[in-house]
Amino acid sequence: MDRLLDNVGASPAAMLSLLMDGKPRTRAEIMAETNLARSTVRARLDSLIAAGLVIGADTDVSTGGRPAGRFAFSPGARLVLAAEVGATHAMVGVTDLSCRLLAVDEIALDIADGPTAILSMLVRTWRGLLDGAGDAPVAGVGIGLPGPVEHSTGKPNNPPIMPGWDGFDVPAAVGPEFDAPVLVDNEVNLMALGEHVASFPNDEHMIVVKAATGIGAGLISNGALHRGAAGAAGDLGHIQVPRGEDALCRCGNLGCLEAVAGGPAMAAKLRALGVEATTTADVVHLVRSGNPEAGRVVRQAGRDIGEVLAGCVSMFNPSLVVIGGLMAQAGDMLLAGVRESVYRRSLPLATENLRIVASSAGAQAGVHGAAAMVAQHVLSPDVLDVSLP
Amino acid sequence: MDRLLDNVGASPAAMLSLLMDGKPRTRAEIMAETNLARSTVRARLDSLIAAGLVIGADTDVSTGGRPAGRFAFSPGARLVLAAEVGATHAMVGVTDLSCRLLAVDEIALDIADGPTAILSMLVRTWRGLLDGAGDAPVAGVGIGLPGPVEHSTGKPNNPPIMPGWDGFDVPAAVGPEFDAPVLVDNEVNLMALGEHVASFPNDEHMIVVKAATGIGAGLISNGALHRGAAGAAGDLGHIQVPRGEDALCRCGNLGCLEAVAGGPAMAAKLRALGVEATTTADVVHLVRSGNPEAGRVVRQAGRDIGEVLAGCVSMFNPSLVVIGGLMAQAGDMLLAGVRESVYRRSLPLATENLRIVASSAGAQAGVHGAAAMVAQHVLSPDVLDVSLP
Repeated sequence: MDRLLDNVGASPAAMLSLLMDGKPRTRAEIMAETNLARSTVRARLDSLIAAGLVIGADTDVSTGGRPAGRFAFSPGARLVLAAEVGATHAMVGVTDLSCRLLAVDEIALDIADGPTAILSMLVRTWRGLLDGAGDAPVAGVGIGLPGPVEHSTGKPNNPPIMPGWDGFDVPAAVGPEFDAPVLVDNEVNLMALGEHVASFPNDEHMIVVKAATGIGAGLISNGALHRGAAGAAGDLGHIQVPRGEDALCRCGNLGCLEAVAGGPAMAAKLRALGVEATTTADVVHLVRSGNPEAGRVVRQAGRDIGEVLAGCVSMFNPSLVVIGGLMAQAGDMLLAGVRESVYRRSLPLATENLRIVASSAGAQAGVHGAAAMVAQHVLSPDVLDVSLP
Repeated sequence: MDRLLDNVGASPAAMLSLLMDGKPRTRAEIMAETNLARSTVRARLDSLIAAGLVIGADTDVSTGGRPAGRFAFSPGARLVLAAEVGATHAMVGVTDLSCRLLAVDEIALDIADGPTAILSMLVRTWRGLLDGAGDAPVAGVGIGLPGPVEHSTGKPNNPPIMPGWDGFDVPAAVGPEFDAPVLVDNEVNLMALGEHVASFPNDEHMIVVKAATGIGAGLISNGALHRGAAGAAGDLGHIQVPRGEDALCRCGNLGCLEAVAGGPAMAAKLRALGVEATTTADVVHLVRSGNPEAGRVVRQAGRDIGEVLAGCVSMFNPSLVVIGGLMAQAGDMLLAGVRESVYRRSLPLATENLRIVASSAGAQAGVHGAAAMVAQHVLSPDVLDVSLP
């Protein structure tokens, strides 16, 4: 690892990544950790300081004498605009380069209004949030959308619930508004990235499930997002539930997880039991108000999700499964059902050290992931080193 | 990408990786491609030449005049010992640093004889093969084993069919024999790495299935092996077949893929139809000699494997599924069944550009992968740069 730092430490981005652990360092400490010459360290620091990304940080007065000249990463040097867009609402935020949320707003929308209307709403919301978030320049924009996205181009790829969005060039529409790069991904991928970066950085292999009206997942493999060949990885909702019901799914197949355990499927089961319920939110509300039928239906949905997840656990061998999304707010019933099936079906080796937990980042995981995607991009050597001397 | 090369080009390993595309280059060409100073390029080349890893390569006489002084990677500078160990036989080989097979032998064994006996057999076989493979020093040893392996330590991790191997320190037993590093992994992982490196380097997301007595898979994510948290990823054989039979599996669960579509399960189905069959090899032999019952049983096994793979395709979204292992030698029946189920069950986006093919590396994929694992390791900056000036 020391040798790797030695090799890459010569670039501004690499020196910045050394400082991004938050610990201020003197020139001498940076030289010792990178094996770089004094002149190189001086030149790199000068260019990072000129860009505002590194500042003097002589807050340590314990040595008493002359300040040793410490330098630190300055995450507030740039702002990041982040949004997680769902089918019916969006979480919109402004963060600094460490993904700290400076301002956030939740807005209602209908994704079927199409890209022009929705993206204009996001831009207006960001402009409002920027008014109170300081004067730092915008480094980039990160957007999560509720469907498959070709990440390299930022275009939605045959999204099933997003009429008008297929192939729409999101970066071309939003980029000029802020004169900044725009990165787009599936919202569940960004939820997974947000959970990984913010809450579980040591779990190199994770599955993050979003259980709501639809059911999807984001995968972290070897510490990075696994997007798959067409940006379609994590499509949990259309895997067949083993020994499940033959419910007809909107995709045209029978017995898909979403048709059995999605929010509308649960509401239909409750109606069949004589309990009034239409939306996913209705189901959550019923569970939280102690309705026993709703509790039973949600627990069975957890078991069904667990039946499918058990196969994914055998295949992917994660150390962590995180359950998020609106249904996760129904409390422990869903999680209990998931655990029941996964621990029953998976092999001992795969579950020996497996944790299955509720989302801790909650509703802001997607915004956090969108900001992390942008920060990782603009601070990468590919991008940063070409803009600095 | 240019800037990345610029950053890492300063190390010997990075310069070597530039030359590993096989194209000889002059000093001037290397300087132009790396932006490094003449003195740095000269010093790095000198150390690589001294190590034998780079040689002068002035075979291009087309310019007519004085040779320009071209330099090339010399893969024959070191030998790699590689083995894929199965339950009943092993493929043992010696390769150069480009994983070209210089000598190979197949030996019969019983994995239950335990690590001391089996590893001694491997060492004896390698010594015999080395006699005819030249004088280059051994760079490292790569071993694939038929069970989960903790890759970081090289110790088998609760392998179900390998009595006596659990936690055995394979590198400590083999390393001193050749005074070289020993890397160990699950054989199906190495099959996947072998297929990726040798035949499908452009497929960043792949699933490689080994269908034989057991059924397992190896995953390539973002171009690298996905081993999972406990080295247990790819455990296809114990995923439940949707709508499948309730066959009792040796793991204690009902309806696992291996209990339905593994070699012994197929042999049992043939016996029930009055056809004599005991082993996986019997089933393959029957199919190849045109037995219609065997063809039908294998095709159904393909469908069952496909039912489980469909879920994995939805989750992982690979661009390629490779079917290997002894059962793949039964011809197109298995593959046809797999394709039938996967294309029926997976969403259009996930299968739009999905290829499902038979293994092309065949029986040598595992040996190739074991050699690639070693070559990648010994030529990595972490290892190479500390041994060179």
